[in-house]
Amino acid sequence: MAASPVSESSRRIFETARQFVSFFAEYERWMASAGPDASDLTAGNPTEPALEAYGEALRASSRSDDPQWFAYMMSHPDAQVAAAAALNSRLGTEYRPEDILMTNAAMAGLAVTLRAVCDPGDDVILVSPPHFLYEPILMATGASAVRVRMQEDFDLDVEGIRSAITGRTRAIIVNSPHNPTGRIYPPSTLRALAGVLTEASDRNGRTIYLLSDEAYQRILFDGNTFETPTKFYAPSFLIYTLGKTLLTPGQRLGYVAVRQDMPEREDVIGAITVAQLVNGWSWPNALLQHALGDFEALSIDVGHLQGRRDRMVVALREAGYQLHVPEATFYLLVHSPVEEDEKFVRMLAERGVFVMPGSLLECPGYFRISLTASDAMIERALPVFAEVLAEAGAPA
Amino acid sequence: MAASPVSESSRRIFETARQFVSFFAEYERWMASAGPDASDLTAGNPTEPALEAYGEALRASSRSDDPQWFAYMMSHPDAQVAAAAALNSRLGTEYRPEDILMTNAAMAGLAVTLRAVCDPGDDVILVSPPHFLYEPILMATGASAVRVRMQEDFDLDVEGIRSAITGRTRAIIVNSPHNPTGRIYPPSTLRALAGVLTEASDRNGRTIYLLSDEAYQRILFDGNTFETPTKFYAPSFLIYTLGKTLLTPGQRLGYVAVRQDMPEREDVIGAITVAQLVNGWSWPNALLQHALGDFEALSIDVGHLQGRRDRMVVALREAGYQLHVPEATFYLLVHSPVEEDEKFVRMLAERGVFVMPGSLLECPGYFRISLTASDAMIERALPVFAEVLAEAGAPA
Repeated sequence: MAASPVSESSRRIFETARQFVSFFAEYERWMASAGPDASDLTAGNPTEPALEAYGEALRASSRSDDPQWFAYMMSHPDAQVAAAAALNSRLGTEYRPEDILMTNAAMAGLAVTLRAVCDPGDDVILVSPPHFLYEPILMATGASAVRVRMQEDFDLDVEGIRSAITGRTRAIIVNSPHNPTGRIYPPSTLRALAGVLTEASDRNGRTIYLLSDEAYQRILFDGNTFETPTKFYAPSFLIYTLGKTLLTPGQRLGYVAVRQDMPEREDVIGAITVAQLVNGWSWPNALLQHALGDFEALSIDVGHLQGRRDRMVVALREAGYQLHVPEATFYLLVHSPVEEDEKFVRMLAERGVFVMPGSLLECPGYFRISLTASDAMIERALPVFAEVLAEAGAPA
Repeated sequence: MAASPVSESSRRIFETARQFVSFFAEYERWMASAGPDASDLTAGNPTEPALEAYGEALRASSRSDDPQWFAYMMSHPDAQVAAAAALNSRLGTEYRPEDILMTNAAMAGLAVTLRAVCDPGDDVILVSPPHFLYEPILMATGASAVRVRMQEDFDLDVEGIRSAITGRTRAIIVNSPHNPTGRIYPPSTLRALAGVLTEASDRNGRTIYLLSDEAYQRILFDGNTFETPTKFYAPSFLIYTLGKTLLTPGQRLGYVAVRQDMPEREDVIGAITVAQLVNGWSWPNALLQHALGDFEALSIDVGHLQGRRDRMVVALREAGYQLHVPEATFYLLVHSPVEEDEKFVRMLAERGVFVMPGSLLECPGYFRISLTASDAMIERALPVFAEVLAEAGAPA
């Protein structure tokens, strides 16, 4: 056998991501052949131009007499001040500027934090369904994923997490509000989780870290409030991106917030800095860091998003679909009328309506709709959903 | 012994980078206490505001009616077209748009390429002196660095490289024009290197990749021309950043170019894509990718930089310093008048002139000056260089 042209580690990781890669290859073909009236409800991507104030903030931060404006930059002090103030005012936390580590959005925040704490042989607990990148990212550190399924009501299964913890457990990734269920984990659950993690860390003589992916922290419906899981447990990393709140996922800007009482805090922050260096100077661009203060004052219109949610929930239920009403995030998770969700998704795609199959998201028997589609796309899609359901329900 | 709060891998990497981290901590203290008349000749950082046209390009690319303008982005087709055209017109290469992989500047390009091809147990050859981040970055893949010293005339030691290659050798990183010597490797050297790598790859039955860090590709003096090392060897990666040409190192934008005849090209590109995913969606920001075409038409005034080089070389030699005239890059490498270069650097720092000690750069007995300092800083620094040399030369 010829020697492999690529690393074994990249081969192993590719196998984990293969299903996604295949789906996106098919999706690209769909998009290429889709007409201008296609309704793309697949990913949490913008379907309308960015907020006018977003561009204004970029332009304002593109001008400066400061010779160091575009110099090498790690976490810029002004960005740290703005991020800490924004977090504290939203969450009632007490982060100081020096607790904020600027990162290239949430996924890079996860990548550098996992690299800072995980070695080969370690386990990281994922709540299933997890984001499709969690497992590839943690595998790059040599660690392995251990899944704990969510409960029927989409809440965390704290007892399942307790049972899954072993001496190898190094971290758990929690995502609240949760993609794709839209669940916000309640304080009682988070308190119970903190208890389990504290007890297990003590028993292991080794800290189990909580990585809290809070990308949808500000996408809340019905006046719901969000409590950060990091409030309940000191060895926590709050991981945030501005990409959802501003609906600009191609602009990689976010941060990792480390609690003041993080055990061995200096070592932990030093290890994240090393991880950012070896990721190839993985700090956000100077321009985006300068604009962060302006950005934190902005948000897409979440009320309008909630209106879209309501319009779709009512219309889909009327058409005969079964789905719950999400508390937060961009997504509707809908029961597939046919068992093989990928088949149903293909039926929709043939009529120009694109959604994500649940089996790709560890939710077989469901499909996911993104509410970031424009109103026009949604209006075009609704009759198609009704037609395809009727077709699927008809005898073969 | 208590369990470590951080990964063993980050501890090992930190040890490798410790000398740099200590130096930069001292440097920060120097800068904090330095007056407004300090001359900072330490790093290749801007000391004057960015080019006006740079800001204009950012502002132009901040506006668009395209709903997908700031959507999730891997390598944007327009950026690929612009980068391939720019490379080909500069270098006489034949890159196609699909050969260009957009990355967060050169260091992320190196990080994802190394992750794509290296496993634990592999060796990567570095030409000493290397950039201080090469070893930490390759260690993150589990590979080890093997150093081959440059020749006395700063050219590559091709026979030394031949001797250093073993069955474990997976890659070599070459940096031309070279920081800190300013050497451009001649075509005859590059041809000989390609011969050695081809022969060794055949013998090993496993490709040895050439990673060509060409950050200073466009910073050439005296009408010198630059030949890319990648022209001579198919299994090559051309790694480029716009951060030097535009003197905006805090704006992370660059690319990896893969030859059309790269062996097992699809596998290699697929592995780099996986590496970019697991680095945390490591593609440049949408805004910078949209602006790339405008950026490629810009450059700092290299003629002016050459004038600064000449001014400093003459003045430093007149003062009694020994140094060669670099062919390219931002740097002067000067013999330290006292054996312990770090001691001499501290003497300069006490007078408000900041340079990098050679021992940090694997060039003990030297110090490095960055020509990116402003003319005013250089004029202020020159008498200090003369005074401190006189002082150091005087009997203790």
